[in-house]
Amino acid sequence: MALSKKPYKGTRDLYPPQKRAQNHLFDTMRKAAHSMGYEPYDGPLLEEVALYQAKSGDELIRDQIYSFTDRGDRFVAIRPEMTPTLARMVMGHHQQETKPIRLFSIPNLMRYEKPQKGRLREHWQFNCDIFGAPTMMGEVEILQMAINLLTSFGATSKQFEILINHREVVTNIFSDLMELDSQKVHALYKIIDRAKKVTKEELNKMITALSLTNRAELILTDYLQLSSFDQLILFLKQNKLEQQLAEVTLLVELASKLGIDQFLKFDPTIVRGLDYYTGLVFEIFDKNPDNPRAICGGGAYQNLLTIFGGPVMPAVGFGLGDVTLSDFLTTHGLMPDFTHPTSDIFISAQDSDAQIEVLKLAARLRQGGGLSVVTHPEPVKIKKAFPLAEKRGARFVALIGEQELTDGSVQIKNMATREQSTLKIKDQIEDIIKLIKL
Amino acid sequence: MALSKKPYKGTRDLYPPQKRAQNHLFDTMRKAAHSMGYEPYDGPLLEEVALYQAKSGDELIRDQIYSFTDRGDRFVAIRPEMTPTLARMVMGHHQQETKPIRLFSIPNLMRYEKPQKGRLREHWQFNCDIFGAPTMMGEVEILQMAINLLTSFGATSKQFEILINHREVVTNIFSDLMELDSQKVHALYKIIDRAKKVTKEELNKMITALSLTNRAELILTDYLQLSSFDQLILFLKQNKLEQQLAEVTLLVELASKLGIDQFLKFDPTIVRGLDYYTGLVFEIFDKNPDNPRAICGGGAYQNLLTIFGGPVMPAVGFGLGDVTLSDFLTTHGLMPDFTHPTSDIFISAQDSDAQIEVLKLAARLRQGGGLSVVTHPEPVKIKKAFPLAEKRGARFVALIGEQELTDGSVQIKNMATREQSTLKIKDQIEDIIKLIKL
Repeated sequence: MALSKKPYKGTRDLYPPQKRAQNHLFDTMRKAAHSMGYEPYDGPLLEEVALYQAKSGDELIRDQIYSFTDRGDRFVAIRPEMTPTLARMVMGHHQQETKPIRLFSIPNLMRYEKPQKGRLREHWQFNCDIFGAPTMMGEVEILQMAINLLTSFGATSKQFEILINHREVVTNIFSDLMELDSQKVHALYKIIDRAKKVTKEELNKMITALSLTNRAELILTDYLQLSSFDQLILFLKQNKLEQQLAEVTLLVELASKLGIDQFLKFDPTIVRGLDYYTGLVFEIFDKNPDNPRAICGGGAYQNLLTIFGGPVMPAVGFGLGDVTLSDFLTTHGLMPDFTHPTSDIFISAQDSDAQIEVLKLAARLRQGGGLSVVTHPEPVKIKKAFPLAEKRGARFVALIGEQELTDGSVQIKNMATREQSTLKIKDQIEDIIKLIKL
Repeated sequence: MALSKKPYKGTRDLYPPQKRAQNHLFDTMRKAAHSMGYEPYDGPLLEEVALYQAKSGDELIRDQIYSFTDRGDRFVAIRPEMTPTLARMVMGHHQQETKPIRLFSIPNLMRYEKPQKGRLREHWQFNCDIFGAPTMMGEVEILQMAINLLTSFGATSKQFEILINHREVVTNIFSDLMELDSQKVHALYKIIDRAKKVTKEELNKMITALSLTNRAELILTDYLQLSSFDQLILFLKQNKLEQQLAEVTLLVELASKLGIDQFLKFDPTIVRGLDYYTGLVFEIFDKNPDNPRAICGGGAYQNLLTIFGGPVMPAVGFGLGDVTLSDFLTTHGLMPDFTHPTSDIFISAQDSDAQIEVLKLAARLRQGGGLSVVTHPEPVKIKKAFPLAEKRGARFVALIGEQELTDGSVQIKNMATREQSTLKIKDQIEDIIKLIKL
């Protein structure tokens, strides 16, 4: 059977234009993280399946994980997400670390998904987490990080919004106000989690199937109609949810003083699944209706270390995938063109005698000037050299031929201005470097 | 059963100090690659096992690969090396690309190895390859790349050497001069490949077991005693291996003119296994006898695309792992200290009223100055602020307290010189940025 030339289903071959684009995303992520004091970490590609089970339950394992038994009979999986690895690592070191612990990573992850727009089997994910900050200080910082990242790509509050909810608010409404038992709370969480993916009719049908009391249904209707922080705060006041009221009020106040309130919107349907979040939850959405997927999701969690028998510790984090981010930036024309490489100078010989001089000059420019120098490995005619230099993204082009060999000079041409200079290689190497660096 | 807090066997938890160190390696690799016009690429974590089989035969698959059957019944493996992916990608695009094609990547790879010093189950590998350059032009460029990389870390020819051989020379000696049949050529290759790992006695014993003719044994002895390019060239002349003589002579000439000859040494025992190399082969060795492992291996190959029914195309490449590189640099004191993070300024509040001012100032310094700003999420006393700032690697520290709130000022202290300046936040933000940026 012939070997396939295609990449494995749901994965990407990143040729230079795509890899340069991805590097642009990664560089901007690293810069955003560094600007806020987040430190880099990384972990193994494989973890024991038991770790993912402890964090996320069986569903993920059953449906989405790349798991197998290794040659040493360990049941392992390719990481589908970074948080369990992070939990293991923080568990190992948190006692000797000064709080808050701020960490970020950009791992490649795999999930067995049905490939579709914005969702692949392998992607890279920017993960930021803060451990041990007081309530709402960590939350606001993590929101700032996400906003800083997107705005540093040029995005504005016209293009994205952060939809926010609070898990304790939801749980309090479901359990205390609506007086549902834990089974119905669980079922209602699942329904609300799907609210954005189904029609209003389907949503109502699912809710009706729960056979809520009239009173519970009224409270739920009220809750689902809340569409701003002001309305939420009023609702929390009316229903005497004091602690949540204090937290939401603090969030709104901090956001307003920091000028990030225009990015934030309360949304009662954001609950982020059933897994480990325990406080604020959020998802970033593209405001363009053509690209309605969440770009990013995150929230506050405090029980992650308990899976290892560790302490309850406040933490907030988010994950943002390179595929959804790239789709978002492309939709809004915020992705620069990375079709061509960039380099400082392209050097070629006009005849084979000059080839060694090309290599020597290139080596001197790299060593002496730190320049990016692309050579051509065989002689080319002048006419052919310019398109070659263009393909290599060179800002300058130099040709060495018979004349140049005779008098030890080189002609250097600026590709943009077409200005040409003739310089002596031996005596004027510093001038050549200066010319190109300008 | 309690969850393990240790990483999967043979893999690493990279906490910030280790990840910063690894980023230093990666940044230097990217810079070296860019300086020579190599363009970045990346590919899938998984490939079909058939692809690795086609390139490397069954041994790798049997002993070392992480393979499994996915949920769609595809027999796949976590990439143990990048070359097969590269081959697939070049096969898909080489016809529309201008030659030479220069590519590099730094993928994470996994092999089922017995973990030992310098050899883990997961590592990252710098891969550089050039396709379609004339013989010895690609070879010399790839050698330059490896040398540029290591010297840019500060290494010299006192610390490493590149041991070089030529597969065609070896094959010609074994087949034509020694007149061995293909089975014995194969066996002898395997023996020579192990030469560095066994004693001289063991080597002789393995050779004796081949029952060579006296004449063949004499030629082999002569060959194995060659210890310089001069001796090799003499040997090739005496034995009339014209084509190889021309290639080796060209290599020596180019290396000498480019001033890289002091790094290169002929070594008759370098053959790089039995796999796909067809021309020059090389391994970089640490000269320190305490760290005798190869840092890097590579060579010329021309039949890689034929596994897809593609053309014969000259190519040269190498792979260099982050673990062996890091061991090498550490051995020679060339690894900077990455224990602590770096940041521009650490800002903390002296009482809770000032906390919001801390966040506001931080946001302005990040946005206006692109500075790396670490805040503390709760008030601290002056005494505690300095050690905190030190831990965050801050060059400056700023405290905001009651006095500062009253007159809108901030005290900024240079952590190195202990010089202190008091500036107005509102009116002098540009001055603050200038002060810190200096």
